[in-house]
Amino acid sequence: MAQKTTLKEFEAVFPKLVEDLLDHAKQYKLPDQFVNWYKASLNANTIGGKCNRGMSVPDSVSLLLVAPLTEEQYFQAATLGWMTELLQAFFLVSDDIMDSSVTRRGAPCWYRQPEVGMIAINDAFMLEAAIYTLLKKYFRTHPAYVELLELFHETTFQTELGQLCDLITAPEEKVDLDNFSMTKYQFIVIYKTAYYSFYLPVALALYHQNIATPKNLKQAEDILIPLGEYFQIQDDYLDNFGLPEHIGKIGTDILDNKCSWLVNQALAIATPEQRKILDENYGRKDKAKEAVVKKLYDELKLEQIYKDYEEKRVGEIRKMIDNIDESEGLKKTVFEGFLAKIYKRSK
Amino acid sequence: MAQKTTLKEFEAVFPKLVEDLLDHAKQYKLPDQFVNWYKASLNANTIGGKCNRGMSVPDSVSLLLVAPLTEEQYFQAATLGWMTELLQAFFLVSDDIMDSSVTRRGAPCWYRQPEVGMIAINDAFMLEAAIYTLLKKYFRTHPAYVELLELFHETTFQTELGQLCDLITAPEEKVDLDNFSMTKYQFIVIYKTAYYSFYLPVALALYHQNIATPKNLKQAEDILIPLGEYFQIQDDYLDNFGLPEHIGKIGTDILDNKCSWLVNQALAIATPEQRKILDENYGRKDKAKEAVVKKLYDELKLEQIYKDYEEKRVGEIRKMIDNIDESEGLKKTVFEGFLAKIYKRSK
Repeated sequence: MAQKTTLKEFEAVFPKLVEDLLDHAKQYKLPDQFVNWYKASLNANTIGGKCNRGMSVPDSVSLLLVAPLTEEQYFQAATLGWMTELLQAFFLVSDDIMDSSVTRRGAPCWYRQPEVGMIAINDAFMLEAAIYTLLKKYFRTHPAYVELLELFHETTFQTELGQLCDLITAPEEKVDLDNFSMTKYQFIVIYKTAYYSFYLPVALALYHQNIATPKNLKQAEDILIPLGEYFQIQDDYLDNFGLPEHIGKIGTDILDNKCSWLVNQALAIATPEQRKILDENYGRKDKAKEAVVKKLYDELKLEQIYKDYEEKRVGEIRKMIDNIDESEGLKKTVFEGFLAKIYKRSK
Repeated sequence: MAQKTTLKEFEAVFPKLVEDLLDHAKQYKLPDQFVNWYKASLNANTIGGKCNRGMSVPDSVSLLLVAPLTEEQYFQAATLGWMTELLQAFFLVSDDIMDSSVTRRGAPCWYRQPEVGMIAINDAFMLEAAIYTLLKKYFRTHPAYVELLELFHETTFQTELGQLCDLITAPEEKVDLDNFSMTKYQFIVIYKTAYYSFYLPVALALYHQNIATPKNLKQAEDILIPLGEYFQIQDDYLDNFGLPEHIGKIGTDILDNKCSWLVNQALAIATPEQRKILDENYGRKDKAKEAVVKKLYDELKLEQIYKDYEEKRVGEIRKMIDNIDESEGLKKTVFEGFLAKIYKRSK
């Protein structure tokens, strides 16, 4: 992968966008106190992550063009990238409330900041609204303006569907493993994560370059959704089998009753006795019970099952990438770049 | 006002829209359990209100056309009307969480329903998303499709700004009347209520009829924003001076530390002694303290001040309506209809 943007370059674009958003708010003669609140929310909730989603927009545009981006091209593509980060910020701020999370990116969650509390819900809305303010400011005359609006609407709805299923399937307070299934797992992962994290950035790059033909979009979706699913399965695997010093956190999926790939695998192959162990120990907010489940995962050889899955899935994805038809301007390198970042990652 | 739609006619349109929304969700092969959840949320949170905002779209279209609507015209206008109701549902579901409200339309708030809880936040998002699903389904080929999308985006943002100011200015747990001012009051009222309740439905009617010229939009805004402000001031007046048997509830603005028109009026004219009474008794969740404030309101003759305000403001609004230039298709009757519904209402 050539022309890879850096976090520093990407983050350098954001202050200009914050300025645009505050200018837009100020046009309503908003008292300063409220402008400052909006500014604080924009900075606290959007900056500080790895920005993988956001950076993949300029990276993809550059790979599609097979050339480094001019300053203007970079700004435009990075602005689209920041919209994916704003969408994620909107989801994370609200997910943290729904999941009663405590910290995010090493700091207390926004809703747990002094003075914020449930105002965070409205702040989440305003992060979402920022997407459309920026789209209007920078893409009103773009030939794909309507398609960009619709893409954000649809992706937002897909993610909300995935979140709904996740919340209903795996409530933290009520453990019932009968609720889980690989089918539901797949649904949650695809809609809650894969569309906005994988498909959206590439679709934005295609629209940006005016090569979002039905064929290109379909090819991108057909590869990026399985890729996103693989990414989340890997995430679930790392939550238990990854090294805390690599993944930067201590996994809590077992404690938190998460509808994880591992528990669904375990449920699929467990004997009645093993199933009983799962029923009694999964999702119980108890370190000793968590250890029992971890031991069972080892007995069930889930690490090896994951590794076999990974090799098989990556092989299939590689094949799909090889088969891409580039005649309408799509480039295999876009997908190779994604895959290279993910395959056998340890963090 | 001729051709006034009835709640029954208007509500009869909704099941078709719910069907459309569920069809859209089902296209993602959503498991039935989740489709049913979405359906329950759509029905519980959108149906059951007075639908004044929603019904004013078909009413306004009919007044603009100076003719009863055909079945097709009615369906289209009512669909736009239901989008304003969906927008309101999105706000109410989330406002109830932010305000820790207990009941809504005589039933427990959605987030207080068993099994719902904080999933209500995601449900609110999905109510918002429903607007764009319906816009795409029914207005994709309308010449004003982009303007309709932008109108909803902008109105949503304006309402969020108003909500932000309201939440920061009048937190329930921390009374500080220094925070209040008529300027902030006006800002909150205009952005939190007037745009989505008054301007939005008429703007939708104008776009629907392809007569949303800059001049017509400006004339509509110039009248509907003051009208919406007057409506909210009246609402605040009725909260204290209205009869519970008329307004259908017992006002709680004093108890709840609301940044109401009445308290702002009181603050503007209170002597230092009276100000002290307000500081000690306003927003204290205490019936005896509420009674002290109510007595002060009477001493300050706020009822008469309101009535004088009402006569003056309505006179000004009437004048603005008289001065409307109808040359680009706008009709005075649209505004006369709104004013007639509001003036001297007791509920």
